[in-house]
This record gives sequence, structure tokens and C-alpha cells, in this order.
Amino acid sequence: MSFARIGVAGVGLIGGSLALAARTAGAVVIGFDTDPAVLDRARARGALDEAATSLRALANATDLLVLALPVPATLAALGDLDSFAGPVIDVASVKAPVVAAARHLPQFVGTHPLAGRERGGIDAADGTLFRGATWTLDASAPAGVATRIAAFIESLGAQPLVIDAAEHDRLVAATSHLPQILAVALGARLAAVAAEDGRAGALCGPGMRSMLRLAHSPFGLWEAILRANARPLARDVRALAHSLEAIAAGLEREETALLGPLFADAARAARSLEAEANV
Amino acid sequence: MSFARIGVAGVGLIGGSLALAARTAGAVVIGFDTDPAVLDRARARGALDEAATSLRALANATDLLVLALPVPATLAALGDLDSFAGPVIDVASVKAPVVAAARHLPQFVGTHPLAGRERGGIDAADGTLFRGATWTLDASAPAGVATRIAAFIESLGAQPLVIDAAEHDRLVAATSHLPQILAVALGARLAAVAAEDGRAGALCGPGMRSMLRLAHSPFGLWEAILRANARPLARDVRALAHSLEAIAAGLEREETALLGPLFADAARAARSLEAEANV
Repeated sequence: MSFARIGVAGVGLIGGSLALAARTAGAVVIGFDTDPAVLDRARARGALDEAATSLRALANATDLLVLALPVPATLAALGDLDSFAGPVIDVASVKAPVVAAARHLPQFVGTHPLAGRERGGIDAADGTLFRGATWTLDASAPAGVATRIAAFIESLGAQPLVIDAAEHDRLVAATSHLPQILAVALGARLAAVAAEDGRAGALCGPGMRSMLRLAHSPFGLWEAILRANARPLARDVRALAHSLEAIAAGLEREETALLGPLFADAARAARSLEAEANV
Repeated sequence: MSFARIGVAGVGLIGGSLALAARTAGAVVIGFDTDPAVLDRARARGALDEAATSLRALANATDLLVLALPVPATLAALGDLDSFAGPVIDVASVKAPVVAAARHLPQFVGTHPLAGRERGGIDAADGTLFRGATWTLDASAPAGVATRIAAFIESLGAQPLVIDAAEHDRLVAATSHLPQILAVALGARLAAVAAEDGRAGALCGPGMRSMLRLAHSPFGLWEAILRANARPLARDVRALAHSLEAIAAGLEREETALLGPLFADAARAARSLEAEANV
């Protein structure tokens, strides 16, 4: 373990899972959460060795500070840390605004674990959540601390990937934020159809269910992510809208020829993801 | 069991699962498949008591004939059955063209189990596949045979739902065919992004994976379904395209206000589906 004492600010799904994984890897974990009930629950789940009473106290008691907070709280915490000199990482889903807000911290590394569940909170936390997952590190971080953070990420079972913050944000627009938008748009369409005909729910099979898993994620968590990554995401959403317009136009002429190559591309992408997951 | 001897034409995922479930429920099951290897595999899996050598022989040996075939093969088999007088059902995903093609059969009931898997074939067959699933019956079927088919469906663990064929097709456009189109369009978009930047796959998390599960389904099975239901589906695909265009336009202005109500509607629809699944 590259750090002996890990401080985790925010012990929800990601922070709680990280705490469980870090304890398993041999670290002492100290937690802080603005919600005392969540902090109690994290202790009860065995995620924490100790609890701190403030972010500053947490930072001073540890040799790695992890901000496992929603985007707005991450930005606020970075401001509160003033001239804190120790290693700090965040785990937010957008990197450019976070990295920009952390310029005053000499040992900050913006990171993003590609792991999660549709249901958040400490009760969903799982020490194996990061196993095999990609976990990005911002390419602009100082090399010394970045190397230690990469080792920490590996100790949690994840695969470190160094990537520029803007490139990260452009890619996750397509790989993470676009799927979320699609699940939401599909769920809203189902709600509209079900309002017209109450049998719609009974006519949903396992396909619709798997496509709506992400629709459980709360807007409260997503709003800041989508806003922070609005422009790259807009490009992907519009590309998908154009693709659907073309498919609809074909279907209106009872033509499905357009769909063959799309099915082939999509099956290839899906197989390729499974191959990566099995690495 | 409302029928003692069930004939299953096509022992892939649905036919094989039906055969396994019907045997568990106490029926004798006779199978037929144009692929002898599939028929052998179905026997090896314990799905069949006997095998027939032709569709006609199968029909004459049973007191319920189940056509568990792709849409084009279902339509062809209905033609081949000439003036067959016994009870016949199909399980295809579109009902209006099938019901129209079966008018010469006095005891035909068009049905559709809302069950499936992204991977087809006899090896994926599972006798519990239909447990708790909705299984539709065409409302235009004669009452006597429809009542017996409803009892058969219940004996397999599914929930019968009597519905008009055109209404069925309009609803499954939204509840089944639209999710398939979205998974394919998303997978094709991911393939395009990955072609530009090879790190896209590594940046996919569990959300993308769940959204691409359906993308494994082969175009060969879907083409006839999508073509047969092209016009109702076009309406749903276009509605989703418009919704995405509006979302993209909002994001280009860095506005996310439009998304709040969509997230709320989608979460409600997703919760409502889970509640149904737990019945």
C-alpha cells in the first residue's frame, strides 16, 4: 500500500467502496461526511477505522486525502483546502473543471474510477466495486504523486489510465453520459406511452428493464456532471438524434437496410467491451 | 396441464425454454427443428420426449402445436399447415401480420411471451424463462381455445394478457423494439468514437455495458420484426430523436433544466417496472 493512512471525505457508494477496498488492502481509513448518519453507517459497515469531525481535520490526519463527493461539493472542498500541501485526489465524473479548481494544490491528482451502480449510498458500497475497472489519472499531475496514486489505484484492484482531462471529458461524454441520457429519454418515452395505455408496463420485457437500469440514478447527482460536460455531451446526443432520425425515416419507408451495418457495428462494440471486462 | 402432448416447432431459446417448462409442468413434448443438430441438442438437454421429422408429422402427433420460429419462418409454417384443425399458437414478437396469415386455421391463437435473452439458441434455453413474464394472447382468437391457451401459459409460470394484435404491436414498438434500436444506435456510436480514440472502450463503465446488452441480438432475427412493425416503431424512434434534439439544444446553451422532469419521469417508469416484476 503506497499510503498508510487514507482519508475519505464523503462515504457514499464510491467513498464507502474505496474505504472498504483500502482497508482490505491494509490501510488505516479515516472518514468524514457532512451527514453524521452516513458516517455512522459507514463505521457500522466496517468501512472506517476512525471518523474525523471536519474536512480540514481529515486532511491533517492522513497521508492521502480522497474527495469522494458530488461535483459541486468536490469544487467547494478544493476551495476549502486552501494551501494544503499533501496528496489529494478526487473521483468525480468530469475532470477539466475539477483539475482547474485544484491548481493551488501542489499534489493534486484528478482521478475517475469507471465503476458505479444505479443505486448510490453507503448501503450499496462494496469493497470489490473497482476490481478490473479502469481508473483514470489526469495527465497534468506531477509525476511523483501520480506514480504513488497509480500504485494506490492498483492496490484497490483497478487499472490506472493516464489521460488528459479534456480528452477524458470528451470520451466519457460518449461512454458514460450519453448512455445516461438515453436511459432517461427512453424511460420518459415509456412513461408517456404508459400514460396513454396502462398495459405498456406489462408489455416490457427484460430488454427494457436492462435499458432502464440507469434511469434510477438521481438527477441531483447528474445535473452538475451534465452541466460541466455540456458541450462535448451535446455533440454525442445530437449525433445519436441524427442516427435515430435516419432510422425513423427508413422505417417510414419500411426500409431496414440502414440497420444491418448499425447492428453489426453495435455487436462488435458490445463484444469488444466484454473482451475488455474479461482481461 | 390443459394439453397432454405439446409439439414445439423450433427448439431455440424460446421453443427450448417452453419445452423444458412444459415437461416440468407434466406434458409430453415432441420437438421439430429444421436443424438436426439443434434437435439433438434439445434432446440432450432434456427438453424433448420425442422428435418429429416434419412440421406436419409434429402437428398430427400433438394436441397443441407451438410455432417457436422467427417471423418469416412462422409465416411460412402457417402457410404449410393448410387446413390443420387443431390448436396452434405462435410466439413471434409482432402479432398483426401473423394473425392475418393464420386466418385459415380455426384454432389459432397469436401469442407473445415477453421474455428473452440477448443470446439465443437451445444452449441458452431455461425452463424458468417465462416465470412472472407477461404472455399475450390475441383478442380475436376463438374463446374456447383461448381459454385453454391461457391455462397453458399459466402452467408455464407466465401471466396471460389478452390484447388486440394491432394494439400489441403499437405498444411493443415502444416497450421492446425501441430499446433494441437504442442499444444498436448507442453501440454504433461507441464504435465510431472508439475508431477515433482507442481508449473509448477502457472508459466504458457498467452503465454502458447494461445499455449494450441488447446489442448482441442478431440482425437476422430482428430484421423481419422491425420491418413488420416499421410504422408504429418509426413513430417511437422519431419521438425519441426529437427528445434527444431538445436535450442537445439545451446542453449547447449549457442548460439542464429540461432534464429534471425527464429524469423524474424515467425514474418513475423504472420503479414501476420493478414493482411489476416483483408481483
